[in-house]
Amino acid sequence: MSTTTGISRERLEQALEHSTFAQLLGAELLDFEPGKVRLQVHSRPDLCQHHGYMHGAVVGFMVDSGCAWAAASLVGDVVTSEYKLNLLAPALGERLVCRSEVLKAGQRQAVCRADVFAIKDGQEKLVATGLATIARV
Amino acid sequence: MSTTTGISRERLEQALEHSTFAQLLGAELLDFEPGKVRLQVHSRPDLCQHHGYMHGAVVGFMVDSGCAWAAASLVGDVVTSEYKLNLLAPALGERLVCRSEVLKAGQRQAVCRADVFAIKDGQEKLVATGLATIARV
Amino acid sequence: MSTTTGISRERLEQALEHSTFAQLLGAELLDFEPGKVRLQVHSRPDLCQHHGYMHGAVVGFMVDSGCAWAAASLVGDVVTSEYKLNLLAPALGERLVCRSEVLKAGQRQAVCRADVFAIKDGQEKLVATGLATIARV
Amino acid sequence: MSTTTGISRERLEQALEHSTFAQLLGAELLDFEPGKVRLQVHSRPDLCQHHGYMHGAVVGFMVDSGCAWAAASLVGDVVTSEYKLNLLAPALGERLVCRSEVLKAGQRQAVCRADVFAIKDGQEKLVATGLATIARV
Repeated sequence: MSTTTGISRERLEQALEHSTFAQLLGAELLDFEPGKVRLQVHSRPDLCQHHGYMHGAVVGFMVDSGCAWAAASLVGDVVTSEYKLNLLAPALGERLVCRSEVLKAGQRQAVCRADVFAIKDGQEKLVATGLATIARV
Repeated sequence: MSTTTGISRERLEQALEHSTFAQLLGAELLDFEPGKVRLQVHSRPDLCQHHGYMHGAVVGFMVDSGCAWAAASLVGDVVTSEYKLNLLAPALGERLVCRSEVLKAGQRQAVCRADVFAIKDGQEKLVATGLATIARV
Repeated sequence: MSTTTGISRERLEQALEHSTFAQLLGAELLDFEPGKVRLQVHSRPDLCQHHGYMHGAVVGFMVDSGCAWAAASLVGDVVTSEYKLNLLAPALGERLVCRSEVLKAGQRQAVCRADVFAIKDGQEKLVATGLATIARV
Repeated sequence: MSTTTGISRERLEQALEHSTFAQLLGAELLDFEPGKVRLQVHSRPDLCQHHGYMHGAVVGFMVDSGCAWAAASLVGDVVTSEYKLNLLAPALGERLVCRSEVLKAGQRQAVCRADVFAIKDGQEKLVATGLATIARV
C-alpha cells in the first residue's frame, strides 16, 4: 500500500517503449538497480549539432531521463521539476553513457546526480554532469 | 576585424539547416534581432514523453538553442557551457515557443535567459524558464 | 483554513528579526506585495571578498532569501529547495537591491526568479540573476 | 611562465585572511591538494535562519568558495561565474564541512562539484550538493 514503492525494471522498460521521444533518440537502459541507472544513446548523424558532435539536447535528455529513471526506481511515477547541466567537453564517440543516482529521496521529491561519458575506441571521457530534482506524481 | 561581431539571420538559418538535431525536432526561427531570438517547435506525437506531453528534453533543447542563438546574434560562433531549467507546467499545446535574450555579453561568454510557452487554442502558457551560459568559440 | 495563505508583511518582518544571519548581513525588506519582494543589503567592508567587492555569498543570500520571501508572501512558511545563480558583474556600489518574483506557485512548491542590482552614485547595474525552487513546509 | 599555475596553500590562506566575509563566517581550510579542497564552518547562533539551522546562504558560501578554492589550486586567481545548489536536509550539527573538487579545468574556466556535510555527534550527513563554473581572472 505504500506510495513509496519504486517501479520495476520491466515497468520502466515498458514506459520507455511508450516514450516516443526516447525511441526517437534510441535510448537504451543498460543497468537498473534501486536508486541507480545507466542508460545509453548511440551516436547518429541526425543527433548532432552544427560542429558535428552530439547535440547538447541529447546530453540534456540523458541527464533528465537518467535522473528521472533513477528516482522512479525508488519512488514510482515521477516528473522532472528542474535540472542543471554543465557541458565539459565535446560529446564525440560511438555512444554516450549516462550514470545517474539518487542522492536523497524524500516524501515529495528526489534529488539526483548524473554524469555523461562519451565512449570512443573503448575509452570513456566525462563530457557532462548534472543535478536534477524529480517530483513524485 | 572585431571578434565580437554577431552572426546574421541568414547565417543562423544556414547553421540551423546543418544542425540535424534541430531538423529532427522541426525547430524554426520566428524572430531574430541582436540579443533576442524567438524559436518554435510544433507538437508531434514522437516528441512526447510517456504522460503524453512534449518531452522535457524538447523544452531543454529550446532553452539551450534559444540562448545559444541569442548569444550568437551578438558574439558569433558559440557553444553552450551550462544551463538550468525549471519545468513549470506540462508542455501541452499545438506548439512551443521559446523567447530568449542575452542578459550580459562579455569577452568570453554571454549569460542568457529563456522562457518557453505552450500555445493552445491561441492561449500562451509559461511552461518553463531557464538560464544559460554560452561560450564564444 | 486554506493552507495556501501567504504570510503578511508584519510576519515576514518578524521572521527577519529572528533570522540572525539576515541580521548579521543587515538585510532590509524594501517592498512587499503578494508574489513580489524587494530587499536590500548595504555595502560594508566585512561583506566583501578578496577583490574588494561584495562577496558572491551575499548575492547568493539575496537571491535565496528574496525568492523564499516572495514565495512566502503567497504560500506561507517555506524552505529553499534549490537555486542557481549567474554572477554577471562585480557587485560594487553603496548597496545591493534584489527584486524577486514568483513565476509559478503550485501545491507543494513555488518557482521564483530574482535579479540583483548594485546601486552606485544613483545608477543601477544588474550584477546577478537567479532561479529558485522554494518548498512549502 | 605558464598561466595555468595554481596558487599554493599559503597564498590561499593569505587570501582567506583578506576575505572579510570568509572571516565573518569563520571559514577554515582543512585540506588542500591540487584540484581538491575541504573547508569548514562551525555552527554559531548568528549563522542560522528562522527555523534554527544553518542558513542556506552559509551553505551557499561553502559551495561557492569551496569550488573557487579548488579551481584556484589548479589555475590561480579566479572568480565564480555561476553555481547551482540543492539543499537536501537541514544543516544541523556542530559544524559543516564542504568537500569540493575540480571536474574539468580548461583554458578559461573550471567546472567543480561540492558536497556539504553536517557533522553532529561524530556522524556525517550530506546536507547539500552543488555544481559551479569558476572563471580564471
